[in-house]
Amino acid sequence: MAGTNSERELLTEGPAIILAYPQLGENIGMVARAMANFGLSELRLVNPRDGWPNEKARSAASRADHVIDRAKLYGTLEEAIADLNFVYATTARDRDGYKPVRSPIIAARELRQRFKSGQGVGIIFGRERTGLTNEEVALADEIVTFPVNPAFASLNLAQAVLLMSYEWMKTGMASEEETSFQAIEQRPATKEQLNGLFQHLEEALDARNYFRPADKKPKLVENLRAVLTRPSFTESEIQVLRGVISSLDRFTRENPRGSGAPVDSSKGRGRKVHGGGDD
Amino acid sequence: MAGTNSERELLTEGPAIILAYPQLGENIGMVARAMANFGLSELRLVNPRDGWPNEKARSAASRADHVIDRAKLYGTLEEAIADLNFVYATTARDRDGYKPVRSPIIAARELRQRFKSGQGVGIIFGRERTGLTNEEVALADEIVTFPVNPAFASLNLAQAVLLMSYEWMKTGMASEEETSFQAIEQRPATKEQLNGLFQHLEEALDARNYFRPADKKPKLVENLRAVLTRPSFTESEIQVLRGVISSLDRFTRENPRGSGAPVDSSKGRGRKVHGGGDD
Repeated sequence: MAGTNSERELLTEGPAIILAYPQLGENIGMVARAMANFGLSELRLVNPRDGWPNEKARSAASRADHVIDRAKLYGTLEEAIADLNFVYATTARDRDGYKPVRSPIIAARELRQRFKSGQGVGIIFGRERTGLTNEEVALADEIVTFPVNPAFASLNLAQAVLLMSYEWMKTGMASEEETSFQAIEQRPATKEQLNGLFQHLEEALDARNYFRPADKKPKLVENLRAVLTRPSFTESEIQVLRGVISSLDRFTRENPRGSGAPVDSSKGRGRKVHGGGDD
Repeated sequence: MAGTNSERELLTEGPAIILAYPQLGENIGMVARAMANFGLSELRLVNPRDGWPNEKARSAASRADHVIDRAKLYGTLEEAIADLNFVYATTARDRDGYKPVRSPIIAARELRQRFKSGQGVGIIFGRERTGLTNEEVALADEIVTFPVNPAFASLNLAQAVLLMSYEWMKTGMASEEETSFQAIEQRPATKEQLNGLFQHLEEALDARNYFRPADKKPKLVENLRAVLTRPSFTESEIQVLRGVISSLDRFTRENPRGSGAPVDSSKGRGRKVHGGGDD
């Protein structure tokens, strides 16, 4: 799941991620990596305990060097957010306060809208163990909190940054269905192709007295067609199935394809045999 | 941001998380922790390289013991998904195939719907370094892939599990606005309270000849009221502001509150003084 590709577009815009008094260099590195995955690159560090620059951070960043190299250092949280217009504080605890509390998806939309209109925006994350103090939360405009298992709330710093970065990226996408690659588009088979399949199979089965007793044949055919219609086979799938039927119809276990045994040329009624590898 | 609280509801239902041939015990542990955060608990391990049980996994799981203890071991991926009805394969690479490719949010909704109707559902994650082979992807019904920075796609195993678990949890919530706690609800001030504020402030300013020249007064009052109307102050905010005005109005820098200097009783016109700590 790893890989940096410099030929592809490197996304580098969005809210600043502000780490207030982070402790371990490794965690700062993992934050940088989480940000880079979702196109964020502005990392602000408030008085990191283990100093800055920090080689453990660079190593844990897993080549998110553009984030590490541009990280800015501040002495206080106030300084770190001074130039921003709108800031979220992240917290897992009920603050018993009056600030609006948002879910990550709503917060990401608010950030995207303000970012688009030219505002400086950011998200503050607290210390690994203790998070943000009430005084630090008070510096933010609103609170964002993550929906977690009430009995097991144990998101670490980089995971919290990852989730907000992910929600940020999603707000920039055309739709929530969007994916970076798609299945190869497959045209559904035409009704003529589907009918060819039915006839092929029914003829092969009929030749083996599959449809017995005779008065049940219409119902048996109906059931068979229903089974084969439901999956909405594509053109190439129909080809595969025709190849399978031909193979079952024309060869036996005793005389498989390529065995040199004579093939009953009356079978398959001169139809082109599809698929089946080297057939 | 950590903390397990056994009094709260422990969520333990949802899709199985299937790790195909995971390598490091630590990663399995971090996967368990990610799952537990979002209420998932069914972990299936296909032939983990470092064996099972694994103490490094337990340590990295950060007390998600209910996930680690219940993890099931399988020899092959086929066995690990044999009892499931619908399975996603996660991949970051375009598979050049015909399987439907879904975004995490769409996949999570599909899983939730099938889970509700009683189907066994799961999500397969591949090896840390190389992900899933094409043959392994072929065992799944559909593909899920994450929206990432095209030039920096470097989600690790636990992060990928975290994002899918998070999306799963969100599909179980009443709305995307839902948060586990809310701001204390604040009633907007009544118009009478707001008018009291205006009168208080305007009287105090008038006494200081703030509104000059006299013919500009109506416009100055209008502007002031506009400024104070826009924030939709709450009742308690109005109280705070009234306290501020009273304090500025009744005391001076030379004779602050509590200095013992006589207070000009003509100021404040007998109005109750609000807020301002021990005032």
